[in-house]
Amino acid sequence: MPSQAMPTAAMLVIGDEILSGRTRDANMHHLAKALTDHGIRLEEVRVVADVHERIVAAIKALSSIYDHLFTSGGIGPTHDDITADAVAEAMGARLDIRDDARAILQAHYDRSGQELNAARLRMARVPDGATLIDNPVSAAPGFTLGNVHVMAGVPSIFEAMLAGVLPSLTGGPPMLSQSLRVQRGEGDIAAVLGDLAMANPEVSIGSYPFQRDGAHGSNVVVRSQDGAAVDRVMAELVRLFPEAG
Amino acid sequence: MPSQAMPTAAMLVIGDEILSGRTRDANMHHLAKALTDHGIRLEEVRVVADVHERIVAAIKALSSIYDHLFTSGGIGPTHDDITADAVAEAMGARLDIRDDARAILQAHYDRSGQELNAARLRMARVPDGATLIDNPVSAAPGFTLGNVHVMAGVPSIFEAMLAGVLPSLTGGPPMLSQSLRVQRGEGDIAAVLGDLAMANPEVSIGSYPFQRDGAHGSNVVVRSQDGAAVDRVMAELVRLFPEAG
Repeated sequence: MPSQAMPTAAMLVIGDEILSGRTRDANMHHLAKALTDHGIRLEEVRVVADVHERIVAAIKALSSIYDHLFTSGGIGPTHDDITADAVAEAMGARLDIRDDARAILQAHYDRSGQELNAARLRMARVPDGATLIDNPVSAAPGFTLGNVHVMAGVPSIFEAMLAGVLPSLTGGPPMLSQSLRVQRGEGDIAAVLGDLAMANPEVSIGSYPFQRDGAHGSNVVVRSQDGAAVDRVMAELVRLFPEAG
Repeated sequence: MPSQAMPTAAMLVIGDEILSGRTRDANMHHLAKALTDHGIRLEEVRVVADVHERIVAAIKALSSIYDHLFTSGGIGPTHDDITADAVAEAMGARLDIRDDARAILQAHYDRSGQELNAARLRMARVPDGATLIDNPVSAAPGFTLGNVHVMAGVPSIFEAMLAGVLPSLTGGPPMLSQSLRVQRGEGDIAAVLGDLAMANPEVSIGSYPFQRDGAHGSNVVVRSQDGAAVDRVMAELVRLFPEAG
C-alpha cells in the first residue's frame, strides 16, 4: 500500500450494546468516510465489551501502532461509562474533575435549570494534559489525550465532536478513488484484474460483487493518492471492459 | 460479567471497502443478534485492511482468546481475496485446491453453463482438515478450520452460511434481556442505577441515552442468563421509575 505521508488511524468502539446486537453501530461508517475525505487512512477498527481491562489493552495497542486513535462511547454519567478511566490508565495520566470541564457543564445545566449532580459531574472527569473536544449538542466534552480522541457514542454527538477535531489534524494527500460497474461476475474478470493490479502497483484495485434485479456483476474500485494513476488505470479498465458503465 | 458455560466469540471483518467508507458493514449486526439468540457471547470485533500480515495476526490473536472466530469477506475469485491463505498460515494448515470443493463448483458452473476457470478455481482452495460450509446462494463454500469459521462478505451469503454453521455449535443458556424506557436524562437516574447495579452483580445493567421529538431519556437494559434475576431487577426498576413505560 502506498503511504506518501498519509497519517494512519484506528477506531475503538466501546460497545456492549453493539456486541449484543441491540444497537447497530453508525459511527464507524461515518468516521471512515470523514477520514478518507480528510486524507487520513483508517486501518483498523475494534469493538470491545465494556470491560475496563479490555478497553485499556485495546487503547494501548492501537495508540502505539497508529498515528491517531478515535474512541466512540462510554463517556456519559452512568456507572457503565468507563472510557475516561481506561484512557487515563492506558496513557499513564491522572484523572480527576477538571475546572474547565466543570465550568462548561455548570453553565449548561444552569441554562437548562437542571442540577449538576454527582453523576453529571462524572462527565467533568478529564485526564491531566488532555485538550477538551467541544460538544455543541449536550455540552459534556470529549477530549484528546496524546493521539487518542475520546468521543461520545450517540451518533449526533460523535459527528459533532469529530467535526470539531478533524480540522486540527493534518491529513495527507487524500486517497482518490474511481469505480467501474462491470456486468460480469468476478470469476470472469478476475484474471484480467489480477494482471492489471500486478502491472500497476501504484494503485490498489478492489473488486466487489453485487447482485441486483437478478443480474450479478462486479464493482471495480481503483484507489490511489495519485490522481493521474487512477485516471490511467480507469482508462485501461474501460478499454478492457468496453461494455461496462 | 457472568459466564455460566456461555461460549465466547469474536468476529474479524476483512474489509478495505469498509475502512475506506465505501461500504457500510452489515454482517456485524447480523452476527451479533444471531449469536446472542444462540447463547454465544460476541466479545470483540476487529475490522482490518486487506493486508496478509494483518489478517494473519488478527486470526492468531482472536482464535486463541475466544471459543469461536467468525470471519467475513475475502473469499472470492479475485486477486484481493486473500483470506483463505491467511487462515491457513495462521492455523498452520496446508492450502490447496480440494476435490470436494472443486466438485461443488464444477456442478454449479456446469448447471449455469459457465466455465470453471482458473480464477473461479481459486475458490476451491481450502485448508487441509477444514470442514466446508454450504453456500446455497452462489455455491463457492466457506469453511471451518479449528475454531475459525470463514464466510463470505456479501451479506446474503454471509447470512446463509451462518445459518448453516450455527446449529452445529453448542450455545450456552442464552443471554436474556429486558429494557425500560425512562423519560429522564441519564444524569438524573445514574446514581440510582449505579446503586442497583452494585446490589445486583448477577445482572448487567446498561443505560443508553436517546433523543426523540425534542425529548431526551434513557433506555435501561438489564441482561443476564438468569431470567428470574432479570425479572426481579426489572420489577425493582419499575418501582424506582414508576413514570416509565
